[in-house]
Amino acid sequence: MATQSGITPRSEDYSQWYLDVIREATLADYSPVKGSMVLRPHGFAIWDNLKTDLDRRLKETGHVNAYFPLFIPMSFLSKEAQHVEGFAKECAVVTHHRLRAVGEGDSARVEPDPEAELAEPLIVRPTSETMIWHMYGKWIDSYRDLPVLINQWANVVRWELKTRPFLRTAEFLWQEGHTAHATRHEAVAEAEQMLEVYRSFAEDMLALPMITGVKSENERFAGAEETYTIEAMMQNTWALQSGTSHFLGQNFAKAFDVTYQTEEGHHEHVWATSWGVSTRLIGALIMAHSDDTGLVLPPPVAPIQVVVIPIWRKKDGSDKQVVVDYAQDIVDRLRAAGFRVHIDAREKLKPGAKYYEWERKGVPLRMEIGPRDVEKGAAFCKLRTGGDKFNLDVRDIEESVAQVLKNMHETLLENARTFRDENTHEVDSYDAFKTSLADKGGFYLVPWNADNDAEDAIKEETKATIRCYPFGEQHKAEGRSCFYSGKPATHMALFARAY
Amino acid sequence: MATQSGITPRSEDYSQWYLDVIREATLADYSPVKGSMVLRPHGFAIWDNLKTDLDRRLKETGHVNAYFPLFIPMSFLSKEAQHVEGFAKECAVVTHHRLRAVGEGDSARVEPDPEAELAEPLIVRPTSETMIWHMYGKWIDSYRDLPVLINQWANVVRWELKTRPFLRTAEFLWQEGHTAHATRHEAVAEAEQMLEVYRSFAEDMLALPMITGVKSENERFAGAEETYTIEAMMQNTWALQSGTSHFLGQNFAKAFDVTYQTEEGHHEHVWATSWGVSTRLIGALIMAHSDDTGLVLPPPVAPIQVVVIPIWRKKDGSDKQVVVDYAQDIVDRLRAAGFRVHIDAREKLKPGAKYYEWERKGVPLRMEIGPRDVEKGAAFCKLRTGGDKFNLDVRDIEESVAQVLKNMHETLLENARTFRDENTHEVDSYDAFKTSLADKGGFYLVPWNADNDAEDAIKEETKATIRCYPFGEQHKAEGRSCFYSGKPATHMALFARAY
Repeated sequence: MATQSGITPRSEDYSQWYLDVIREATLADYSPVKGSMVLRPHGFAIWDNLKTDLDRRLKETGHVNAYFPLFIPMSFLSKEAQHVEGFAKECAVVTHHRLRAVGEGDSARVEPDPEAELAEPLIVRPTSETMIWHMYGKWIDSYRDLPVLINQWANVVRWELKTRPFLRTAEFLWQEGHTAHATRHEAVAEAEQMLEVYRSFAEDMLALPMITGVKSENERFAGAEETYTIEAMMQNTWALQSGTSHFLGQNFAKAFDVTYQTEEGHHEHVWATSWGVSTRLIGALIMAHSDDTGLVLPPPVAPIQVVVIPIWRKKDGSDKQVVVDYAQDIVDRLRAAGFRVHIDAREKLKPGAKYYEWERKGVPLRMEIGPRDVEKGAAFCKLRTGGDKFNLDVRDIEESVAQVLKNMHETLLENARTFRDENTHEVDSYDAFKTSLADKGGFYLVPWNADNDAEDAIKEETKATIRCYPFGEQHKAEGRSCFYSGKPATHMALFARAY
Repeated sequence: MATQSGITPRSEDYSQWYLDVIREATLADYSPVKGSMVLRPHGFAIWDNLKTDLDRRLKETGHVNAYFPLFIPMSFLSKEAQHVEGFAKECAVVTHHRLRAVGEGDSARVEPDPEAELAEPLIVRPTSETMIWHMYGKWIDSYRDLPVLINQWANVVRWELKTRPFLRTAEFLWQEGHTAHATRHEAVAEAEQMLEVYRSFAEDMLALPMITGVKSENERFAGAEETYTIEAMMQNTWALQSGTSHFLGQNFAKAFDVTYQTEEGHHEHVWATSWGVSTRLIGALIMAHSDDTGLVLPPPVAPIQVVVIPIWRKKDGSDKQVVVDYAQDIVDRLRAAGFRVHIDAREKLKPGAKYYEWERKGVPLRMEIGPRDVEKGAAFCKLRTGGDKFNLDVRDIEESVAQVLKNMHETLLENARTFRDENTHEVDSYDAFKTSLADKGGFYLVPWNADNDAEDAIKEETKATIRCYPFGEQHKAEGRSCFYSGKPATHMALFARAY
């Protein structure tokens, strides 16, 4: 049952809680097109903050932006065998380029014009490897043209039947990097570098600690030789894949016949990577940090980092102006220092109602400014993450707000890390795994003999999947037996339920 | 015939010149999907600069960003009668949500899966009024919810049969603002305000002087009560509509039944505006400023504002390091001052080849740094817009570069204004108009009796259209007779050939 806030407690129904938080924080709304959501201004502003920061990181690592077409010729998809296998089942297909009017009066309507059927249908990009590698074939001739380090910010469509806002929607926003290299070594290094960019970005912006590793063959991107992933734990102990980076080998270069002339005059196929993160990250941050009161946002992504609420007491309004002026001065100074600040001086709305609204929307720091605060030269503060209210001296309020927000971010990150570690278990046997998983969920790092069929069987029985073979853990497999088959372990695998 | 640069002179073939400039400056490329272009990194970076600046202007005028779905239910289009009339003929229509594999071996391919046909087709948004007003119906209840001031940066699709890069493509990038207001007066003021935002943005960023005015009924946006426009003159004296702002009255509010409760408790339909500019602006700036050598970019939009080319002479390379260090120091200082600077220290490429490349790509200022410049403490400079080479003292190079670029921008703007004024003519009669238009092109400001059929007839005969009824000129119509019909003039109309 939803509380007074309109938000179902997590303990009662975690899935409903998630939807309630999104609605009450006005992050997103359902659209009339099944599976497509509307990103409302408060939700979009979070994406904009993520995008601005990540774009800077991509440029610092040498990448440039470009834009490729939304539509891809249907035949392109078939050029890479695994790629078509992976994406054909969830494509939006454009077949006509015109509507025509039919009927009259009240029954007037439009329909696709049969005379405007396309000779070859187009698919709406689910990802852009095929289009981009077609273009790279036109642009790459010589070793001098390499590497090509291009990123694109775009919308993509994957026709999912079961959707959930941010986590799985028919259309979503993302960035997709596509790079071309002269050597295997350079391409692998690029794919690994981008995973590290994602990992540090997720920590710095989302306060989300990530496990990094390699995907099993079953979970690999359609067309990749190797998929690297960052995986986070949500508050229900499920995993959420938060970004992936793929070493594509020469698969797409061969499918689109992209070769380059080496310095020695030979012709060789180009090596490729691709990598992306999406609006799914917003789902990750909601599920990782928010509470039964509503959204909790790490300060770096919060559209409003500080809300200032002036409070005047006297019925004749005689103390109003001095309070509002004082509050506005704090706002101006914090803005000049680079913070995103909002002043809520709405009339006819009680302070309590304002507190409640900004808590639901996840504003990290609230300042309540009354006549006594003006006298004291202070700001009375409350953190969205709880704890006692406290005073900040206005004289050095820029520095103290910076410190308070920094501490909040570190606390969120640390709490998430502690929670994850407490919910990561070791088990000796498959039976113990099943019992433990059913009992308390969590992550399981187990010795594993790589076997696609066994992986499918475990998924079928427990719904748990291999999230990755975590980096830095693989030495632990040496000399051990697979927790499932008893065969010699080839990897340490991280199993979990996942979104 | 193309010159050595690969660029056809304007005097010979203006249309081919335009395509050559785009190709040689690596702004865009053709894609395998008819009418869809690829925005290459150099072209996309121009868009990114435009976007960043305009986004700031939109936020300063109180707007927030959001994101609405790409797909619109087909039936939505029919809800506003003029809207469907305007857009049904150029829609991409999605009819299936899955492909299936057919054939085997070499004849294996995919096709739309007949079992995955959508119950209702979806159209790819040509513009988002219908989707957005559907959502506004969910969000707007009371006068407290107004105004709604939302903007979206997005891709849209209009299936044009005859396309031209940037100016007219099947898919393009744009921003579309959609606002909702309590009163007619407020909505009209918003539409007018946004036109002024566009006008000053075009001057400040593109160095393009704009004529502002109102569209004739024939040229109005499908569903608008009034369309405001900014119009620029290209170097062939044709007009280019560069941005529009629409007062939509209550048309969409009525089509989607969006009402609000007034402070007095009545229910009334909401008033609307929409407004947009697109990647077409890049076409405008190419056509307005570039020359037979290639692209010319106003400094505010140039991805690279200054290119620094170190030149070492000695065959043993003994003067190389001192030159490169000196050049790098200039680059670092200019970057710290906020300029976008590139150093081109490529080996094996002669300085002349470098000059030529950066000229084609439109870099506003080039610095050639040799051993003698190091000795003199100078930078030897050349402007993309011509004139003699000149020295800048390195001691205050930040200030002098700022001044040089500012002057260049003002000169571009002034030259464009002079060219436009010189090519704007007055004529007494329709015969004189036809002769003059055929002879020398240009803009024609004429007394006009508003008449859709007469407008169509003139378009049919001369291909000229009414670009707008310019603001500030309408008093000139008083007491005069229409240049075409001889009837009493109702407006002063600006006629021209247009893209």
